[in-house]
Amino acid sequence: MDKLSLDHIYRASHVLKNVIRQTNLIKTSINGEDIYLKPENLQVTGSFKVRGAGYMISQLSEDERKKGVIACSAGNHAQGVALAARTYGIPATICLPAGAPISKVEATRSYGAEICLVPGVYDDAYRYALKLKEERGMAFVHPFDNPLVIAGQGTIGLEILDELPEVDQVVVPIGGGGLASGVAYAIKQLSPGVKVFGVQAEGAPSMFNSVRDGELETLPKVHTIADGIAVKEPGELTYQLCSTMLDGIVTVSEDEICTAILHLMESRKIIAEGAGAVAVAAVLFGKIDCGGKKTVCIVSGGNIDVNFLNRIVSRGLEMSGRKCRLVIEMPDKPGELYTISKAIAELGANITAVNHERTASTEDVTSCVLTVSMETRNRQHCEQIQQELVRMGYKLTDF
Amino acid sequence: MDKLSLDHIYRASHVLKNVIRQTNLIKTSINGEDIYLKPENLQVTGSFKVRGAGYMISQLSEDERKKGVIACSAGNHAQGVALAARTYGIPATICLPAGAPISKVEATRSYGAEICLVPGVYDDAYRYALKLKEERGMAFVHPFDNPLVIAGQGTIGLEILDELPEVDQVVVPIGGGGLASGVAYAIKQLSPGVKVFGVQAEGAPSMFNSVRDGELETLPKVHTIADGIAVKEPGELTYQLCSTMLDGIVTVSEDEICTAILHLMESRKIIAEGAGAVAVAAVLFGKIDCGGKKTVCIVSGGNIDVNFLNRIVSRGLEMSGRKCRLVIEMPDKPGELYTISKAIAELGANITAVNHERTASTEDVTSCVLTVSMETRNRQHCEQIQQELVRMGYKLTDF
Repeated sequence: MDKLSLDHIYRASHVLKNVIRQTNLIKTSINGEDIYLKPENLQVTGSFKVRGAGYMISQLSEDERKKGVIACSAGNHAQGVALAARTYGIPATICLPAGAPISKVEATRSYGAEICLVPGVYDDAYRYALKLKEERGMAFVHPFDNPLVIAGQGTIGLEILDELPEVDQVVVPIGGGGLASGVAYAIKQLSPGVKVFGVQAEGAPSMFNSVRDGELETLPKVHTIADGIAVKEPGELTYQLCSTMLDGIVTVSEDEICTAILHLMESRKIIAEGAGAVAVAAVLFGKIDCGGKKTVCIVSGGNIDVNFLNRIVSRGLEMSGRKCRLVIEMPDKPGELYTISKAIAELGANITAVNHERTASTEDVTSCVLTVSMETRNRQHCEQIQQELVRMGYKLTDF
Repeated sequence: MDKLSLDHIYRASHVLKNVIRQTNLIKTSINGEDIYLKPENLQVTGSFKVRGAGYMISQLSEDERKKGVIACSAGNHAQGVALAARTYGIPATICLPAGAPISKVEATRSYGAEICLVPGVYDDAYRYALKLKEERGMAFVHPFDNPLVIAGQGTIGLEILDELPEVDQVVVPIGGGGLASGVAYAIKQLSPGVKVFGVQAEGAPSMFNSVRDGELETLPKVHTIADGIAVKEPGELTYQLCSTMLDGIVTVSEDEICTAILHLMESRKIIAEGAGAVAVAAVLFGKIDCGGKKTVCIVSGGNIDVNFLNRIVSRGLEMSGRKCRLVIEMPDKPGELYTISKAIAELGANITAVNHERTASTEDVTSCVLTVSMETRNRQHCEQIQQELVRMGYKLTDF
């Protein structure tokens, strides 16, 4: 099997020119420090995955190409493999669990891959893909634990050094660890002084735990909105690389991820998926010291359902106190809604939804419940309104 | 007064290097044709406006710089002027109508400008700004009707020709006409064969009407979600330039704009404001023939309130049949909700919200009203569900 080398990464960089789009760094500022985003969400297929898949597929022999490639994924890797295979004119089969979201299935199909829906969960689809690989002799494109795939992801490291030679540190999302391994390898070979940090979701800390404990560990379950990095078990190769090359791994919470997604939308006008936003979340919430340093955050992907995005935006707005929801118990008599809405208006909040319910089970049978959603300036503003209503004699159920 | 010239545009291009960010074209495909986005939503301040303001301010004399600049805007121009002035170390005063959204006021203030909230509407703020200009001798930075401002926006034309010399046509949003004038001027001077089309919102067709009728017209009112191009009256200079340089102007509807915003979010992971999406809307809905041509759409800005974005996404999803809301009249007896939800589940739609109301005024006093919101695959899918419910004997109020 091929070994990871700088030579492979340079070769990948050359080969991929026909497959990928150039994603220039976007300079921004977070907490007053210089931060540069590597926007792989703007990459073709909406994520960096096309790099690793593209390089591995490009290195197949004529004979292997004829037999085609197979992969198992319900996400970014599926689209990366499908597009890369189409670019090289190679048939691709993608196995997905039967319950995969229609939108992701259709996106993969749109790149010309043959879709194979396997009853059961991801592990069932994975086993079936390996079975097909054996039966038909297709090349299996692993989502992360393969030196050529890692070399492909490593091209991002080269691009960062090329565009920002004075970089001090790079922050990379970690799921299986392919991206972090490739980027860290490229950077440490060329500029050993540049620090590379990994970030995982608190709900899926498989590499974090493994590196901390010094052995490869498997999580019983993973749960995070960052589905692109919800991986139960690191790869063997990626575990070796991450444990030796990274300067540290940190984790971020779900609320921190939501806030980072909202931040990227509002201040940079780009859409990141959960996994794509963890590096920014780590910087935003001070998990990594950026003081006086030039920090690059890799925004690894942007494939997120827009309906889901709505909910994340709401959560992010609540987190920062710009959306505030109050449940107010009030007497069931004329004028109460008027009094409350007047108080809220005078304090400058904008009411966005009201629900007035008489049958709610309050302690007092003569009272009813008013739920008010508002746009507020910040957390202080929201608290100010709560205090004013309490001062007026209302009981706030969620206060 | 200075005259618009290619020399000014080249000079602006040089001067602005310290002010703006490079916004490389993003290649995409719409309706099977090659479309290139010029993502000025990713520009500093979130819009192209910083170009024109930056160049005009850079050309002020030492004496003028000391007195500072003044502008009137509640939107992108305000932020552009504020950032450009800060870059050159010049004091900036921005007049805004007192009711301007807090977020826009704060964004402008964050670039270091002095904010002057004027009671009344935009026109009052504009008059007050002109008064201040006279009193204090400050330079007034017009949002569009100034040759230096137009030259600054024209740098986008140079960049397009530089990055994609084989371009066939460029599609540009029009509000006051500064962007379209500058881009068309640059392109027609250098590559007269390249076509340049303007796009306005149906609810604010001031330049469209003026060019059609051959005279500068003022609209009594404007109404569009594309607030960045909601301009009642074109400039004199921009009217002259647009009427002589453009190959055509088209208009797009509010629903078309919403769909374009959603398209950019989903397929390109970028956020455009209404004005920023009109060029893409024009291409998406076939208002401009792109068959076999290389078309550049300028995405002029991305400053949109995220709460508002939620509503636009919803509208876009409804437009494309991916979100479907049914109001169902049903008998007030046990098992009805079960029957309906079973039918919907069997047809593969995902219910996202339900409201069951007994007191609604239906014709039949024994019936009640169920409102169901669902995620559906497309318009056909939504209609299929409606037909099935009707077949089962339910009455659909909105059908």
